[in-house]
Amino acid sequence: MMPFHHMLHLLHRELSLFSRRLNKPWCRSISNSFALHSEKSVPDFNSFAARTNTCGELRSAHVGQDVTLCGWVQYQRQNLFLVLRDFQGLTQLIIPQDEAHSHVKSILCSVPMESVLRVTGTVCFRPPEQKNPRIPTGDIEVKVKTAEILNSSKKLPFEIKEFTKKSETLRMQYRYLDLRSSQMQYNLRLRSQMVMRMREYLCNLHGFVDVETPTLFKRTPGGAKEFLVPSREPGKFYSLPQSPQQFKQLLMIGGLDRYFQVARCYRDEGSKPDRQPEFTQIDIEMSFVDKSGIQRLIEGLLQYSWPEEKSPITIPFPSMSYAEALAAYGTDKPDTRFGMKIIDVSDLFRSVDIGLIQNVLRKPQGTVKAICVPQGMRCLQNKNLESLKETAKSRFNQEVLHLVLGPDGSLKSPMSKFLNREQQSELIRALNIQVDDVVLLAAGEHKKACSVLGNLRLESATLLEATGLVLRDPTAFHFLWVVDFPLFLPKEEKPAELESAHHPFTAPHPSDTSLLYSEPTKVRSQHYDLVLNGSEIGGGSIRIHNAQQQRFVLEKVLKEDPELLSHLLEALACGAPPHGGIALGLDRLICLIVGAPSIRDVIAFPKSFKGYDLMGSAPDQIGPEELEPYHIRVAWPVAEVAAKKN
Amino acid sequence: MMPFHHMLHLLHRELSLFSRRLNKPWCRSISNSFALHSEKSVPDFNSFAARTNTCGELRSAHVGQDVTLCGWVQYQRQNLFLVLRDFQGLTQLIIPQDEAHSHVKSILCSVPMESVLRVTGTVCFRPPEQKNPRIPTGDIEVKVKTAEILNSSKKLPFEIKEFTKKSETLRMQYRYLDLRSSQMQYNLRLRSQMVMRMREYLCNLHGFVDVETPTLFKRTPGGAKEFLVPSREPGKFYSLPQSPQQFKQLLMIGGLDRYFQVARCYRDEGSKPDRQPEFTQIDIEMSFVDKSGIQRLIEGLLQYSWPEEKSPITIPFPSMSYAEALAAYGTDKPDTRFGMKIIDVSDLFRSVDIGLIQNVLRKPQGTVKAICVPQGMRCLQNKNLESLKETAKSRFNQEVLHLVLGPDGSLKSPMSKFLNREQQSELIRALNIQVDDVVLLAAGEHKKACSVLGNLRLESATLLEATGLVLRDPTAFHFLWVVDFPLFLPKEEKPAELESAHHPFTAPHPSDTSLLYSEPTKVRSQHYDLVLNGSEIGGGSIRIHNAQQQRFVLEKVLKEDPELLSHLLEALACGAPPHGGIALGLDRLICLIVGAPSIRDVIAFPKSFKGYDLMGSAPDQIGPEELEPYHIRVAWPVAEVAAKKN
Repeated sequence: MMPFHHMLHLLHRELSLFSRRLNKPWCRSISNSFALHSEKSVPDFNSFAARTNTCGELRSAHVGQDVTLCGWVQYQRQNLFLVLRDFQGLTQLIIPQDEAHSHVKSILCSVPMESVLRVTGTVCFRPPEQKNPRIPTGDIEVKVKTAEILNSSKKLPFEIKEFTKKSETLRMQYRYLDLRSSQMQYNLRLRSQMVMRMREYLCNLHGFVDVETPTLFKRTPGGAKEFLVPSREPGKFYSLPQSPQQFKQLLMIGGLDRYFQVARCYRDEGSKPDRQPEFTQIDIEMSFVDKSGIQRLIEGLLQYSWPEEKSPITIPFPSMSYAEALAAYGTDKPDTRFGMKIIDVSDLFRSVDIGLIQNVLRKPQGTVKAICVPQGMRCLQNKNLESLKETAKSRFNQEVLHLVLGPDGSLKSPMSKFLNREQQSELIRALNIQVDDVVLLAAGEHKKACSVLGNLRLESATLLEATGLVLRDPTAFHFLWVVDFPLFLPKEEKPAELESAHHPFTAPHPSDTSLLYSEPTKVRSQHYDLVLNGSEIGGGSIRIHNAQQQRFVLEKVLKEDPELLSHLLEALACGAPPHGGIALGLDRLICLIVGAPSIRDVIAFPKSFKGYDLMGSAPDQIGPEELEPYHIRVAWPVAEVAAKKN
Repeated sequence: MMPFHHMLHLLHRELSLFSRRLNKPWCRSISNSFALHSEKSVPDFNSFAARTNTCGELRSAHVGQDVTLCGWVQYQRQNLFLVLRDFQGLTQLIIPQDEAHSHVKSILCSVPMESVLRVTGTVCFRPPEQKNPRIPTGDIEVKVKTAEILNSSKKLPFEIKEFTKKSETLRMQYRYLDLRSSQMQYNLRLRSQMVMRMREYLCNLHGFVDVETPTLFKRTPGGAKEFLVPSREPGKFYSLPQSPQQFKQLLMIGGLDRYFQVARCYRDEGSKPDRQPEFTQIDIEMSFVDKSGIQRLIEGLLQYSWPEEKSPITIPFPSMSYAEALAAYGTDKPDTRFGMKIIDVSDLFRSVDIGLIQNVLRKPQGTVKAICVPQGMRCLQNKNLESLKETAKSRFNQEVLHLVLGPDGSLKSPMSKFLNREQQSELIRALNIQVDDVVLLAAGEHKKACSVLGNLRLESATLLEATGLVLRDPTAFHFLWVVDFPLFLPKEEKPAELESAHHPFTAPHPSDTSLLYSEPTKVRSQHYDLVLNGSEIGGGSIRIHNAQQQRFVLEKVLKEDPELLSHLLEALACGAPPHGGIALGLDRLICLIVGAPSIRDVIAFPKSFKGYDLMGSAPDQIGPEELEPYHIRVAWPVAEVAAKKN
């Protein structure tokens, strides 16, 4: 038999391994966040239940108390110890060895792992050498008096342990087991608590009204991504809206003044990775507000609800125009945790005699742009540089050149012979190039050159991080407002026609209103995006509240049939207050806060990236007789019909 | 011109009429409920907005302050006064008459009703004779300095006034205007506040986790009322679930321990009056709990969240078995605000020589039942009595006899000659009949006789109330638990087969478990219904947590294919904790609390009783090209195809 002290050591190690994750984030965070948000008291997790305490609750102060615990068998060792787990932690149980408790012993020694137990016993100090400071219950153990198997478990497809690697498919198929993991428990509990704090802020502090809006509505114009729901009336369908946009505006017109909703939204995008067919947004709308009002509201909301255990955030958030963001980061959602900004070096190159570059600069919007990859020469291999250039070529059809500042202070590059000493110094100064830095340079149309370099900036960061550098601190949270977007964009397929950059209800920028009727492409909007660490986590706008303006935008600019929105146009004419709002993508926000690799890790029952529920098998076959009341029939693709015939 | 004092009187009266509703329930209740729930402070309704105060906020204490108000033009009188309205109340504005403010005057005198204004001005005392104690802002008025029309309104299809009668269709079509009414504002705000209090109770006090569950799932066995959502895979459909039942059980199996969700649910019932295709339930599930635990939780929840301005409720709620409820009230949702209980007088009639009755009593479950309608002789007309009997005949195919106790102490009825003096006295004693009371008597099978008299009890109450009696106090709230339902019922169409009385996951009563395998029809369940004033507002149960038992129920008792629920059966075998829960119908609950005639009055954008959205016209026509990605085609009914051809 294994020596007793060795066994204890093993037990100790295993407990710690499992508990590291289990106890660090969520057990502690639950009590912390309630203690530090000082107006809160700790919730009573034992009310109305058949236990006196949770498995994460007992401390030295409980020693001597008789307790009742319910939980899952985490493991059992040598018929001496059993560790019981619940959502809050682990408690070590001592299996009684005396004759009087032989029945209890036989239960505890034979019960399968992950079975559900109810035990009573007395809280005792652990012997000093067995104390485990790494788990909150590490000072105590419970001497069991009675034990009852509430439900026996069969052997599971995987163990409920932090360090058990499982495939995504297995996790999805047995989601109810995956949910037992400390990480999923932490994610879902943090989500619930954060949303609760948001509600307190909106409802109790600022008088917002939580209003539920319908999800069975009619198709919005151009709503190609809306799921359809057949009705019992032939040929008529409901549509599952992508957001409560129309309803929240109608609520403002209805005098609700301040609306919010944790709204379920739907988007049928087929199989986009890390998107979900149904998702949740914190949906907000206010009357008599301007852009700055909504921004201050959201900053306050996030600060108020921000989890205690995460790095604090400071408000107000910085703001940047869309034009600035594009110019400096090549994207409308810059990750501002690191530099490597795009620098325009067009002027410098105007006097450089390279035909290709001169050709570019002569074109409208022709520019030369560069980013400086710090220590690129030491951190990036040749194949990395080649792959960056290949990305530019294949995804953007854009040539990218690179330059290196050698230890002798001279720029190494096939192009450097075209630059005189002064031009080289100027370039080094403009980009603040240090020895061993790599400069990536692109000549082309402004927006395209920026996009390319914005992409290479992120790819370079990934490459540098692979060598151990930390550019994007995973514990830092950099919020950013991006504003002054264009109101309209040329349609990708038909550039002569315009479409809304965001949606047709966005108000024009007050300074640009007159341009709406003359040069709509020059109109900036009152739209604002909220960006966190390079991800868009929210967006909103001040809306059009004038019926004529709304009709003009729909009919004259967007060439849409205004009749499809006649109810909204009618409503705007009936005393619509000026109003605006925002929607935060809750799944994405929580995902970034907990640092999960996918939004599927912050959703209890997510769909796979193809939109399947792998646990319950949805969507599923439906027979013709069940379709009959809805007056629809499956139009089988020809290949399948043929296959069925064979 | 109208004399000034007369005009003032008119103004005063109109303000009061409008304000009676406006200020009584919601303006006052908003401040009250926050003041009385003492841990709350009043929310700041003016944060982030272009106003200093709401239109319901100014009091004597504000006199002398310069304020900015935004709101709708309620009315304007004689170019002297304008009343501005917002969600919180009304403020009287004084239109400046001096030359320096001629521009302001011209704006305020010409602005159309229901236009949106922003004004600045100074708060002043009203002259003593103009003070209006019936509205909260009745002591002050605002002398306007500047005014701006934020949006002009066209003439509305109806006035936003309490006493304006509108048809339901008009209200639905212009819902955004209907929402401006004080009653809709009150209903939606009360709903939001009550749900917020429920969340505080569940989440902050008792450690429940708010978890969102999918609404795109697969069809549940027998889920004929589930809406379908076509997917992009030919022949495969999602289903919109009627409740998160499976998910909440899976969450318990996943160790979430305490779950709640304000859950959107869907039910396709065609056109049932006062039902909605989408509705909301407070959905709750707990591990390691028994029936009593859930009941105490819910009693605490309702008491904690109960609106201050409503009659208080006392807990614990009384409880009644299904059998008792049926016997005494003829229904499983008794309205216990009044008596008129059903009395079994079978024994008394065993010795009465009426062939018809003797025939009934000889049959299994044959009974004679009666209710006593107090003062029926004085309050009910003959035609009323006839209509009651006609109901029994037409809806239940049941003869009902009536007896009256005359002033001389004798029973008047065609049947009374068959009753001797002693039998008459016994009947009078058993039913506690007073002079002028009417007794309705039915002989038949127990359940049927009870149902008939339960119906007549409610109809009689309505008839009595029409004469001015108060039987069902509209301000009283009588909660009742109904328990010990049968677990299975014979199918209506095929009485030899069994179906679940509630759903197949309901656990059998612990005392009846063994009967499950021998006499399933005799098994009582661990289901509980919560009834308020005769309406079922919630229901739940302790669930089956044993996989074998669940499989037996599905396969052997209900003859369902267990494969359709294989994921749940598998999950139950993986260490499912004992668990139970409940769902409260939020729409119905709020409807009863505010005393609204329909649940449509507590939903922002309800569907008509045929399931239409009359404002936006949903469901709507969808063309074949939009159906193509979903591989469905409309199967037009033959008549319509013919009509289209012509």
